Amino acid sequence: MARWEPGARYRLGTAALELFAERGFEQTTVTDIAARAGVTERTFYRHFGDKREVLFDGGGEFQDYLAQAVSERAAAGDPPLAAVATACTLASRDIFADRLEFARKRAAVIAAHPELLERELGKMAKIARALTDRLRAAGVDENRARLAAETGVAAFRVAFARWVAPDNASPLADLLEETLGDLRTITAETARDLSVP
Amino acid sequence: MARWEPGARYRLGTAALELFAERGFEQTTVTDIAARAGVTERTFYRHFGDKREVLFDGGGEFQDYLAQAVSERAAAGDPPLAAVATACTLASRDIFADRLEFARKRAAVIAAHPELLERELGKMAKIARALTDRLRAAGVDENRARLAAETGVAAFRVAFARWVAPDNASPLADLLEETLGDLRTITAETARDLSVP
Repeated sequence: MARWEPGARYRLGTAALELFAERGFEQTTVTDIAARAGVTERTFYRHFGDKREVLFDGGGEFQDYLAQAVSERAAAGDPPLAAVATACTLASRDIFADRLEFARKRAAVIAAHPELLERELGKMAKIARALTDRLRAAGVDENRARLAAETGVAAFRVAFARWVAPDNASPLADLLEETLGDLRTITAETARDLSVP
Repeated sequence: MARWEPGARYRLGTAALELFAERGFEQTTVTDIAARAGVTERTFYRHFGDKREVLFDGGGEFQDYLAQAVSERAAAGDPPLAAVATACTLASRDIFADRLEFARKRAAVIAAHPELLERELGKMAKIARALTDRLRAAGVDENRARLAAETGVAAFRVAFARWVAPDNASPLADLLEETLGDLRTITAETARDLSVP
């Protein structure tokens, strides 16, 4: 489809996020988005089912990227959480590096709408399931595969939230590395004493 | 409300889960649930807004329990992830120990309905935010507080999924301990090499 209108999908995404930030998600219509992007409403609907979908565009691409990277790293001998962490680091460079303003506006809209947040969480859970499958296919025990995928994705979400915070100036890859270091620290600490009173 | 009808809320919850398992979530009506529980529909609506709500009853109690326990453990000097892990272990004993059959049926219904799964994920995310706040109030650095809460909750979800699996016979507290041990192992492994190609 994008063949006939190069860049329309990208322009629609940018226009939608601008309008959501300016007017609010509810107050923005598909008519507004199409007008801002300089395309017809018909073109909008050729790319997206509704205005919510604009926010979740690219989720499949992200999942496929991570899944492929996890398979490659696991095949190269990375332990499971390292494979997930490296995949996230590669994605932060290849997918997110130049998308901070978009990600920041998107995060603000999602945080303000519980139903969008739930959909976002559902998307991340789907990614964790896909990564679990890839780790298992690489021979990792089921429990550890699931744990590595779930905690790796949780750590990515924590680093991502820091990245899109209004006052942040650090690259996502650096925050991810720091978060993984923190994870090693707080996990090692639990070995000291886990006394159930 | 429950004063007039002792046990009605509990009976409604049990009846609903039985019917969801027997007939499916969509095919079960509030009329069916009330009849199975031996109460009127009016009584159902005194306790729940709709049949979905039955599945998420007790979520607030669980969150309050964990938040309180995390505050106590953090005040007693537990490191952040240990505080979350101990709180989850206490909850598995005090809240879940005798609820396996209910939890098993509930998990099956939720897994089969993406919109229920998203709501469940939203509930767990809300719990993670509450635990983050408690850890921060106990003096834990914001980033580590959030990471401990998010990864602790992720580890709990992994252990919980193993607990409700049809073939499982281990208590939740044991699975939680094993999962935390796995988390230490897979996290320590990442120190070896994290080489981004």
